[in-house]
Amino acid sequence: MNQISAFVINRLTLYHFILDELNDETISSTKIGHLLNIDPSQVRKDLKLLNTSGKCKVGYEVKALKLSIEKTLGFKNTKDAFIVGAGNLGSALAKYNSFKDYGLNVIAMFDNDSKKISTTINGKEVFEISKIGNLSKRLNVDIAILTVPKESAQAVANYLAGSGIKYIWNFTPVVLDIPKTVKVWNENLIGSFLQFINYDEVKNK
Amino acid sequence: MNQISAFVINRLTLYHFILDELNDETISSTKIGHLLNIDPSQVRKDLKLLNTSGKCKVGYEVKALKLSIEKTLGFKNTKDAFIVGAGNLGSALAKYNSFKDYGLNVIAMFDNDSKKISTTINGKEVFEISKIGNLSKRLNVDIAILTVPKESAQAVANYLAGSGIKYIWNFTPVVLDIPKTVKVWNENLIGSFLQFINYDEVKNK
Repeated sequence: MNQISAFVINRLTLYHFILDELNDETISSTKIGHLLNIDPSQVRKDLKLLNTSGKCKVGYEVKALKLSIEKTLGFKNTKDAFIVGAGNLGSALAKYNSFKDYGLNVIAMFDNDSKKISTTINGKEVFEISKIGNLSKRLNVDIAILTVPKESAQAVANYLAGSGIKYIWNFTPVVLDIPKTVKVWNENLIGSFLQFINYDEVKNK
Repeated sequence: MNQISAFVINRLTLYHFILDELNDETISSTKIGHLLNIDPSQVRKDLKLLNTSGKCKVGYEVKALKLSIEKTLGFKNTKDAFIVGAGNLGSALAKYNSFKDYGLNVIAMFDNDSKKISTTINGKEVFEISKIGNLSKRLNVDIAILTVPKESAQAVANYLAGSGIKYIWNFTPVVLDIPKTVKVWNENLIGSFLQFINYDEVKNK
């Protein structure tokens, strides 16, 4: 499937949120647009990407539309993940309950600070970093969210690569140099926001 | 300009990072690809989007290429911003120095917790929320990064709308209902990451 833009992902996420709140069986693009202050023609354009079976004029079946969005965005392929680095950002992400709604289930955290180890943040226990290989295997987790200080980023990433981690969501400002078998998503947070404030909404696809 | 996908933004940001570290005057797509473990043909495809004057076979002028990326992604249109909500996430973002590299300059924070007011987080002072209208006008700031608890999100957003704020980067899981004169970017953090782990890299545009 073609990869879709951040603006479209964002709107699809909003539609999903609205659909979750509804008790109706069907909904029209006009109503979706009205609830979210989005032009209904934009709504229809977005939903066309989903290969859903709704008829634009009559309306969309709410359940089918939700499932379609979940499938397109991968929400229901629930995956377990670790947060590595229990500082401000790691703790904030541990409390970010939206991740669970979207299928990313943080089940444990790791750090090397003895004051943090064995504490719990939003129900997630902080383990000593050296335990990650063992827990990764036992719990079948291959996703790590990297939120360590930049000085430690490369060393920790090397360690993760040797510990069974296959995907790193990199929140550090470091370009990680690790084997290609580990896929890295460099979170730059600001990329889509910059586009948003620098360009008119009318230019949205 | 057509809005570009999160994957391309991400790679352009990486290229910019690499170019920043170089002392050479020119660089080839092969070298960029080698440094970042990205296929050189993908690099060339991305750089074609920039309307840069480099010749693919000879190489790109490093300075011109950097400027081109900065212009495309809006890095150099430096904008000042406030963080509203000085909890874990707000504090983490206050310490996220990459924002400044990309032209978003957080100059103050706001909260209603007396224990936080008048403290400083990474050089940014925390003010009482009621001061935001005054400071927004005095400092000519119209961007607010919203990191309050979800229970307060709508009320605070209403307040921001009445205080001169024109752009809200919304980190709360609440769909904000405010006048269309205020543009809201709903940060869902996970959208692009989900695409990344659910689809093969080869499908990247």
